[in-house]
Amino acid sequence: MDPNGDVCFDEIIKQNLGPDQLKQFNKIHYGREDHCELKLQETTVSASDKYNFQVEGYSFEAAKEEIRRPRVVKIGLIQHSIVLPTDKPPREQREAVFDKMRRIVEIAGTEGVQILCLAEAWSCPFFLCTREKEQWAEFIESPESGPSIQFLAPLAKKYGMVIISPIFERDVDGKMWNTAVVIDVDDCGQYLGKHRKNHLPSVGSFSEINYYDPGNTGHPVFETKYGKIAINICYGRHQGLNWLMFGLNGAEIVFNPAATIAEFGESFWGIEARNAAVANSYFTASINRVGTETFKVLKVGEEKGVSRTYYGSSYVTAPNGCRTPGLSRNKDGLLMAELDLNLCRQIRDHWGFAMTARLTIYAKELKEKVGTT
Amino acid sequence: MDPNGDVCFDEIIKQNLGPDQLKQFNKIHYGREDHCELKLQETTVSASDKYNFQVEGYSFEAAKEEIRRPRVVKIGLIQHSIVLPTDKPPREQREAVFDKMRRIVEIAGTEGVQILCLAEAWSCPFFLCTREKEQWAEFIESPESGPSIQFLAPLAKKYGMVIISPIFERDVDGKMWNTAVVIDVDDCGQYLGKHRKNHLPSVGSFSEINYYDPGNTGHPVFETKYGKIAINICYGRHQGLNWLMFGLNGAEIVFNPAATIAEFGESFWGIEARNAAVANSYFTASINRVGTETFKVLKVGEEKGVSRTYYGSSYVTAPNGCRTPGLSRNKDGLLMAELDLNLCRQIRDHWGFAMTARLTIYAKELKEKVGTT
Repeated sequence: MDPNGDVCFDEIIKQNLGPDQLKQFNKIHYGREDHCELKLQETTVSASDKYNFQVEGYSFEAAKEEIRRPRVVKIGLIQHSIVLPTDKPPREQREAVFDKMRRIVEIAGTEGVQILCLAEAWSCPFFLCTREKEQWAEFIESPESGPSIQFLAPLAKKYGMVIISPIFERDVDGKMWNTAVVIDVDDCGQYLGKHRKNHLPSVGSFSEINYYDPGNTGHPVFETKYGKIAINICYGRHQGLNWLMFGLNGAEIVFNPAATIAEFGESFWGIEARNAAVANSYFTASINRVGTETFKVLKVGEEKGVSRTYYGSSYVTAPNGCRTPGLSRNKDGLLMAELDLNLCRQIRDHWGFAMTARLTIYAKELKEKVGTT
Repeated sequence: MDPNGDVCFDEIIKQNLGPDQLKQFNKIHYGREDHCELKLQETTVSASDKYNFQVEGYSFEAAKEEIRRPRVVKIGLIQHSIVLPTDKPPREQREAVFDKMRRIVEIAGTEGVQILCLAEAWSCPFFLCTREKEQWAEFIESPESGPSIQFLAPLAKKYGMVIISPIFERDVDGKMWNTAVVIDVDDCGQYLGKHRKNHLPSVGSFSEINYYDPGNTGHPVFETKYGKIAINICYGRHQGLNWLMFGLNGAEIVFNPAATIAEFGESFWGIEARNAAVANSYFTASINRVGTETFKVLKVGEEKGVSRTYYGSSYVTAPNGCRTPGLSRNKDGLLMAELDLNLCRQIRDHWGFAMTARLTIYAKELKEKVGTT
């Protein structure tokens, strides 16, 4: 329970329903009667106790096939808070996050996670709400050689783990972007590629558009050793066409690293990525940060400053709509899920959503309605 | 509780959570702490007791504006079961449904419902699962002059109520369609127009494609006295582009009349129309039938016959993601909601999803990916 007395959806359910109601609730709400929890290693349990982070794991199976072997991949999502006050020197802030994250990433590695995704702008405070620029410049980094990839690449190599690292990017021309970097394992933990956030929020006084442009990388799908993955960064989850294009380009898992607060639609956090999983017959994995971040500096509004609380609740959805419970609303955590990627095609065949989508008609209708660039 | 011991999601919650947990649960799950229930008339309560149907009502308010006055409209959704066995003469079956429905429609009228939507193919058994054709021909009717509009038009006129009547249509060329007919009040309860189902399911052995073609009416929005409405029939709820086009064409409320069973994705029944409401900043209203329908005749599979149970759970979602509880899984019911349509633009301005949608890019990208017809 957090200082406001808030408990998360899943805790409320677990604490209050008897076995029969729980079974029925799980069937209707989560899409299956049993969450299929993974057994954790003892070292994981003791580390999570010692360092105060949550670890959960679930599995999603597919039917056996004759020709294709099961393609089971274990993914991990990490939700975390920043560590130091936001007015400490950037390097100190970043190193403190690295210290904490190292422990959780190591646990993911020892648990056999093969694709790990961190939250949006994971290595720094989410300073965009200040609308200030200069003092945050040290948090903007090179995708190929900045502090974040330098920290993560050895861990990717050590554990044979693909890592998705969402950062603030400084490109070769000095321009800023909101970018997810994919660190691959085939080339010993090296930079594989990146995707830039396609849709930028401008909600009330919160706006990212005065920091950077909407992404210019389209809808790339990265063919990693473990499966075809894509990244839909934060606010892009509100756009069905964004999800659709990743699917049409072949994604089997779409990660949605985010940094979002309760006032910005917590009641549909559990809806959008899940809807996308069903609509596109792929897995989705949603990651949100936790904790309260307070910023003293704020020229617009002067002395008031700004404070934002993130609600975690990271979760995974399968193409058949089944989902895991969410992680806590307020605690660091690692959520793991074993996915058989064969389920994507099986479910696509079953529902027929792709077969019946009439996309050529929509391409025409949309063009007639809005024009094209 | 139905014969299988099933209770619905909302009943489980109501029965098991204490006041504090309920408040928290409602905030996270439904998008607000209080469902804002409408007070029902005494005649409604007594009729619902006498004839054994559920009646619920909720309100969604918008902020006051300077220039536009509130545009409050009261909508109603009716979920119901068929009455007679499916091997009775079609006229008897239809009349029995009419008799039952008359009582519920009258209640909607006396409660001041202004736009009423019935479930998919509401006046007949959902015979498509039999894959038989000839013996169901009597249920296929004219949108302008068939039994359904003859029954409903006087009620529309009496109560000044727009009624959406989903039927199986026989067109002038004798061809069958899955069609929603809109009966308007401006012209004394007359046929206003129709929309034909855009996406047809072909799931496992269930298929509508051998009965009729996918719709050829595009994405019409009907400008009624009470607001701009559209109809996304049943399986079309799985297609984000279908929802999108109704929104781009100006819909303020999109109704989703359906006939769907638990095995066909009950766990995402509450996800898809709600996601569409958020994504497109309009209201959505989802209606599913209830009851078990048994068909003795079935050439494919011969003597086995087929039986399907519908799970009701009709609900309404506002553009901000707030939703009503669902109606029962197994009982006839009328769900009413008072909506201030001003909320659509207010929410569109607030979230900025339309502003940030980059649709011209998608029109181009989609065309390049799939071509156009």
